[in-house]
This record gives sequence, C-alpha cells and structure tokens, in this order.
Amino acid sequence: MAKVLTSREENYSQWYNDLVIKADLAENSAVRGSMVIKPYGYAIWEKMQAVLDQKFKDTGHQNAYFPLFIPKSFFSKEASHVAGFAKECAVVTHYRLKTDENGNIVVDEDAKLEEELIVRPTSETIIWDTYRKWIQSYRDLPLLINQWANVVRWEMRTRLFLRTAEFLWQEGHTAHATKDEAITEAETMLNVYSDFAENYMAMPVLKGTKSPNERFAGAIETYCIEALMQDGKALQAGTSHFLGQNFAKAFDVKYVTKENKQEYVWATSWGVSTRLMGALVMAHSDDNGLVLPPKLAPIQVVIVPIYRKPEELAAISEKVEGLIKDLKANDISVKFDDRDTHKPGFKFAEWELKGVPVRLAIGPRDLANGTVEVARRDTLEKEILQFEGISTKIKNLLEQIQINIYQKAYDFREQNTFVVDDWNDFKAKVEAGGFILAHWDGTEETEQKIKDETKATIRSIPIDGKMEEGKCIFSGNPSNQRVVFAKAY
Amino acid sequence: MAKVLTSREENYSQWYNDLVIKADLAENSAVRGSMVIKPYGYAIWEKMQAVLDQKFKDTGHQNAYFPLFIPKSFFSKEASHVAGFAKECAVVTHYRLKTDENGNIVVDEDAKLEEELIVRPTSETIIWDTYRKWIQSYRDLPLLINQWANVVRWEMRTRLFLRTAEFLWQEGHTAHATKDEAITEAETMLNVYSDFAENYMAMPVLKGTKSPNERFAGAIETYCIEALMQDGKALQAGTSHFLGQNFAKAFDVKYVTKENKQEYVWATSWGVSTRLMGALVMAHSDDNGLVLPPKLAPIQVVIVPIYRKPEELAAISEKVEGLIKDLKANDISVKFDDRDTHKPGFKFAEWELKGVPVRLAIGPRDLANGTVEVARRDTLEKEILQFEGISTKIKNLLEQIQINIYQKAYDFREQNTFVVDDWNDFKAKVEAGGFILAHWDGTEETEQKIKDETKATIRSIPIDGKMEEGKCIFSGNPSNQRVVFAKAY
Repeated sequence: MAKVLTSREENYSQWYNDLVIKADLAENSAVRGSMVIKPYGYAIWEKMQAVLDQKFKDTGHQNAYFPLFIPKSFFSKEASHVAGFAKECAVVTHYRLKTDENGNIVVDEDAKLEEELIVRPTSETIIWDTYRKWIQSYRDLPLLINQWANVVRWEMRTRLFLRTAEFLWQEGHTAHATKDEAITEAETMLNVYSDFAENYMAMPVLKGTKSPNERFAGAIETYCIEALMQDGKALQAGTSHFLGQNFAKAFDVKYVTKENKQEYVWATSWGVSTRLMGALVMAHSDDNGLVLPPKLAPIQVVIVPIYRKPEELAAISEKVEGLIKDLKANDISVKFDDRDTHKPGFKFAEWELKGVPVRLAIGPRDLANGTVEVARRDTLEKEILQFEGISTKIKNLLEQIQINIYQKAYDFREQNTFVVDDWNDFKAKVEAGGFILAHWDGTEETEQKIKDETKATIRSIPIDGKMEEGKCIFSGNPSNQRVVFAKAY
Repeated sequence: MAKVLTSREENYSQWYNDLVIKADLAENSAVRGSMVIKPYGYAIWEKMQAVLDQKFKDTGHQNAYFPLFIPKSFFSKEASHVAGFAKECAVVTHYRLKTDENGNIVVDEDAKLEEELIVRPTSETIIWDTYRKWIQSYRDLPLLINQWANVVRWEMRTRLFLRTAEFLWQEGHTAHATKDEAITEAETMLNVYSDFAENYMAMPVLKGTKSPNERFAGAIETYCIEALMQDGKALQAGTSHFLGQNFAKAFDVKYVTKENKQEYVWATSWGVSTRLMGALVMAHSDDNGLVLPPKLAPIQVVIVPIYRKPEELAAISEKVEGLIKDLKANDISVKFDDRDTHKPGFKFAEWELKGVPVRLAIGPRDLANGTVEVARRDTLEKEILQFEGISTKIKNLLEQIQINIYQKAYDFREQNTFVVDDWNDFKAKVEAGGFILAHWDGTEETEQKIKDETKATIRSIPIDGKMEEGKCIFSGNPSNQRVVFAKAY
C-alpha cells in the first residue's frame, strides 16, 4: 500500500503536518493562523479536558468564565506583562458593519469604540480586575479558579496545534494570603501537569523553572514541564507561574488579615493548551500514523470483520456482540467497523493512521477455529488468539500499551540526554538534537549569546537537579548547577 | 432577617438582577455588555452542558471547533444572513499595539488587517466554507457536528444571561443529502431541547415554528421552544433551523449522489446558550432566592450542623459521615457546611438564596432523639424525620421536588394561557402577561402592526396545534390556526 505520510526521516516537519491533517485531527482554516479542530482531534482534546478538569476539581479549584475582550488600558497596568503581550494582539476597534452605496459590506466608521478592546491573549488583567471585587478578607482566600477558554496571540509563523493565532486552553488564576501558599499552589499545579503528561499522555517530562529570558511576562517564577520530541527538539508542555504580588498591586487587590491589617494578595496562574495535541502526536507517532496512548484514544479497540457474503458478516456480528457489550461495560470504547464501502485493507490502514491502540480482525476461518487476530498499534505486532476470554486480554493489552509507549519515549529521552562540558561538543550536540545538561553562569547575557550562536535556549533549570560546582559552557564563569539546553518548538 | 432581594411583586426586573448577582451566578464585567460567570453559576452551566452534550452524542453528533474570527467577506455570501447579523458585530481591524512617544499603549496603525475579521456572532459561514472541503460524496453525509463556543453580538441594552454582548452556547451544524432528512434533523434537535427543558430544567415549553419576522436570518424554517416566565413574558429557550440549501449554495457545497449526479447539500443549525441560565432563574425562583431543580443543582443536599461546643460538632460530624458517603455513592452531591465563621441562621439564608433543593439541620437534641430536620427549598416546608433511613427519603424527596417544580411551572402556564378572539381583550391580556392564543391572517404586515400596537410578537406557531377556522384578531381576515402571542424577553 502506498504510504500516505512523508516519513520522519525524510522531512519531520512535513511528516507532522501530513499526519495532523490525514489523521483528521485538524486543518488550516480560511482565517490566517486559525485552525479547525476536526471531530477526531477534538475527541482527543475532550478526553484531555475531562482528565485535567477532574484533577483541578480534586485539588479544590472551581471553573468560571471571564470576558473574551479586555479593555486596552488594562494591559498598561502591569509593565512587564504589556511588554510581553502587546505585540501580538487582535484589536477590536468597531462594533458594526454596514452596506455602502455600492452594496459592499464595510466597517461603519460611526461605530468606533472609544477604547479599543483586545481579544484576550491571556486573562490575568481582566481576572485581577474582577478579583478586586471578590476579595476583601482572609476569609475569601484562597480563591482557586480555572477557566476553559479560547485565546488569541497574533503569530506570524503558525503550525497546526503547536503555534496558532487562536488556541484553546485552560488558565488557572489563584489568589492567596501568603507567599508560601502561592508558591505551593504553583508547584502543586506543575505536579498535576506532569502527572497528566506522564500517566495519561505517556510522555515523560522534566520539571523545572525557567530562566529570566523564558519567564512568563509578569511572573516572579515560571515552573514548566518540558518534553523531548522525536526530532530531538524540546516542547514546553505546560507552565505554572508564581506571580508574586505584581497583579495584586497593578489592580489594587488587598485583603484584611486576621490581625486586621491590609495586605496585597499573592497570585499564581497556570495553563496548558491544545499545544498538548501537537506534543502527543510528535512524542509517539510513527511513519504509519498516530500512536495514541490508550487512556486518551477516542476509540481504544476497533473490530474489523473479514467477509465476502452478507451471512458471513451476520455471523461475525453475532459473535462479537457480547464482546462489544463487555468492553463497553468496562469503559473501553470499541468500534465495530462494518462499513460495506471499504475493504479490510483500507480499514486496517485507516485505523493505523488514526492510532487506535488495538485492532481485532475476525473472519469465517476465525469463527470456525474460535480465534481472533489481535494487532497492537504501538509495536505493530499481530497474533492469533483464542476468542474465548479475549476481553480480559484486551484490557491487559491496553494497560501494557500505555506503559510501553511511555517507556519507549522515556528510553528515547534517556538516549538523547547528554552531559556536556565542551563548547564545540555543545554546539554539535545542539545541532544533532536532544536535551543537553550543561553549566551556565546564571546571566541573561550568556543565555542570549548561546541562543544567538546555537539556537539553543535554556528549557529548564531542573527542580530536583543536584547541585554541582562547574564552569559555564560558554563564559567559563562559575556555576553550581547544570541546566537543560535544547532547540525548542 | 432582612430580605436581600427586591420582591418580584415590587420590581420583577430588579428582583432578577439582584438574584443573579447575590446568588453568585454572574456579574457585570469591566467590558460593556460582557458578564463574568461566577463559579456557582458556571457549575450550573456545566451540568447543563454535560446533559446536552450526552444527548447530542446519543443522537449521533460529534464535537469540533471552528475559528472565532470570520473574514468579513464571508458575511456577504448569504444575503439574508448578513442583513440579520451585520449590524451587531465586533470587528477586528488591527493585530498589534505599540507604545507611543508618550509611553502610552496605542493601536499600531502599521498593523492594519487587509480584510477585517468579525468575531463570530454565529458560525454558519465559516463552517459551510469548511464543509465544502469535507463533503464530496453521499458517503460523507450526513455530517453531524456540534461546537461549544463563545459568540459575540453587539447589544446596546444588556441583561445578565438574557442578553449579553458575549455569551456561551452550543451550535449544531449538520449537512444532509435530502430535504426530508434535514427537516427530520431540525425536528429531532427541537425534541432534544424540549426534553432537556422539561425533564432537567423542569420548565414546560411550547414547541412550534417561527413566523417569517421572527425567523433566523438565513433559515427556511425556524423551530423553537418557548417558555413562560413568572412575570408573564415569554422566553425563547432554544431554536433549531432548517436552512434549506441556502448556505450550500452560498458556499458551493455539493455532493455526488449514488446516481453520480451533483446536488447541493441540505442544512440545519440549532443552538441553546447561557440564556437558559436566565430562563432557569426566572421560571422557578422566589423572593427568598433561587429554586433549582435537583437535576441541575450543583449542591443537591446541604447539611448544617447546629452546635455550640467543638465536641458537639465532632459528634454531629461523626453521625453524618456515613450519610454523606451513602449520598455520594448514589451520585447525590452533598455539602457539609461546618464553617465556624457563620451561624446556622446565616447558612440557612445563604443556601436558600442559592436554591439548594434539600437542607438538613442536625443538632445535639437530634443526636439524642435520632432525628434530623429536613427542609425542602421548593415549598419551604420543614419536618423532623428519623435519621435512620434518611438517605432513601432524601433520594425520593429530590425526585418529588423535580416533579413539583415542573408541575408548579406547568400550572402557572396553564393559568396564564388565554384563548382570545376580541381585539380589546387581546390588548388587555397582552398587557397583563401570558400566552395568548389568537388567530392571525398569516401576513408579515399584520404581525408587524400587532407588534407596533401591543409589543406582542408571535412566539410560536404550535407544531401540534389543531387546525381551526377563524378570523384574524387584528385584520379579521381568514385564518386556519391559532398562534401564540406574548411579550417576550
């Protein structure tokens, strides 16, 4: 069968784009930089949302919804925040269209807004403007809120899921009485994200903090999880920010302590986005298509009947009916692909492309022998098994696949993580790809120079990294900890 | 205790606004016409979403996501659609801000878009532009897609939930091979909505079609559900549109039939929004606060301990522990309100305001007697019951409350539905409020004149209404069916 995808070897970037489109995850829209998330892609996102949402609720958070539009003046209130976001905003200036004398639809210049509205690139400002009204006393704290929303950042070079003008995300915004409590919150949410990445996306991540250059605009500290993609580039998969009292001061949010004193509130924010979809695709998939971890696969098991005559299909349908019921009762999503418009070979290729973890094929000979062919997507292995008791085997197999996918990604990362002390070696390793553990002198200047010369950025200052005296890979100045360098998405 | 709400009698409109704000459902934001949906309000919306989403999936629909922005030119493609929506749009004209010489944040005039983007007021155009790529053959049909999204319509006079510049909704957009199939789809979704309104929101609705004046811009037929609020005004709670081939022709969406002919596709769209939150509040609530139907209440049961000493609270906590577990195991959401910052009277009033269906109060005397006080929100009745076996009684009580709330709203509607044949009587009845069944001659001209004279609009042409010869209430011309008039939100 002809390959539908460019191979990773040939052109990794093209492979990714082909795959996202051909596996029906997303496509470009008529609006520059905005994507359409197709039903199959959206179903994966919904599974991600459901898991994350439950984790947020389990850690005491509630959902709410804040306006899409933010008054322009709000952005001026937190100096570093505006510097980080003002350059990439969609600006609403008018509120009406009209038909002109030639019958064309044009902007009605009489309907110009007094103050322009910005389509939210992130919601700290509008939310902290609201929190001023919600927070008076220590009794109102902590305030633990999350929002599922769309945001817009005007990107010049876009890529499906990885970098789009509009994307979907969740943004948590919390307010606390003390600095320690806020830091604990930021760390808790980082752990929620890393747990999700590793145990659901089957994607190992490094936990760390960001260097000043890579920090969120307005944060005191940015915590992050970083994953390594198959092309050796890093992908930031989630961030959690300790915002100090920056936004509380900018929006005058104070509370009365138990001792009846006025204090500014401490803040965090944290988010993951549809970018995770891109990470999921790039972490595991192969030249045949998607490889989805069972916990996030919209269809976990597909059953393809092999038949020529209608009565054969009827016999197969009858045979698998109980199995389908049993799998569903165990919360396993199963599809019986009895379309008569396509041949089994086409169906095999399609479900392989779409990353369904387990495929069963069953034909008249299987019926006679009491067997079924079981193929697993991650290893592409097939075997003939007894139909009797297959339900339990499928459950075990799904668990094995989840573990195997994680292990494969973990091994890949281990093989592509390098401890480097020599500058030429550093440059070569950066070029080849992977995580590079090297010493850094802690200055923004050096960080920038390394980036200019190699395109590598500091992805992460490991949270649990061991302290170790050394010399900066670039400047030779003293350093007491290795940091993680890589080229990144 | 001082009333926190204006009474309905005194000022219905103020009562509504007070209630939405004081029950922590929503509030106005810094952005004109945009609301903040607060956690308690959002929790109700999430329950609505979960039920509706399951119903959509059960009827074969899949979720997807389309861009927030729509190119201006798309609106010109369907003539009646642009007429209906172009007047109330947020228009994005620029994609960057900058700091000017005085240090102010201003719009960067160098970053003007070649073609303005409209923030979606509804997504027919961008979706049908996409469907052209997705639909080639009869095998691609039907295409049954739903989207959960935010939309913006620039409203001059806004009211929380009922009419806001930005609101949340779902919009279904389906494509079919035949006219009959599309009409069946529009009717199916109307039934999904009416089932949801009646069996979850406990709100009786009339099913019907809209007169031409009230039809969706671009539709051939608009189906609707209409509910009667306590002030005698009607509220349109959901609509489902048969769009014919209008959008298929505007966006050139054709398919190849089994007979290998090219045909335009048939379309529907359908939606409900956060407006349902307003309907829910106004249908059932009273001067003490919200009355929530148990099926949509975020907290179904609240337990308030009555105690003075810590050891009394400890004894009560121990007593109710098993009950809480048992209720949770039965998917009943229960809150044990052991806050030591507020007295029981305050808590009673708060949960009454927030519409929690069942409140239990338990103190030392109850412990001694093996009793518990049970109060139901809908009737405000209280009784002392045996603690033993209370779990089962609560389950039954929740079901009873759901039924009672519906019955109360149903009786109210019956008492306020009038068959009218005299014009003066018509005017008086419109003024007093309620649904008025009257004959109409079927012309847009008469419809408009009645609206101009009385502010009543045709809410619905009943789907199952009986045919009956009569004379138009206004023109005296012949009519063969009564239609429903009312003043409306």
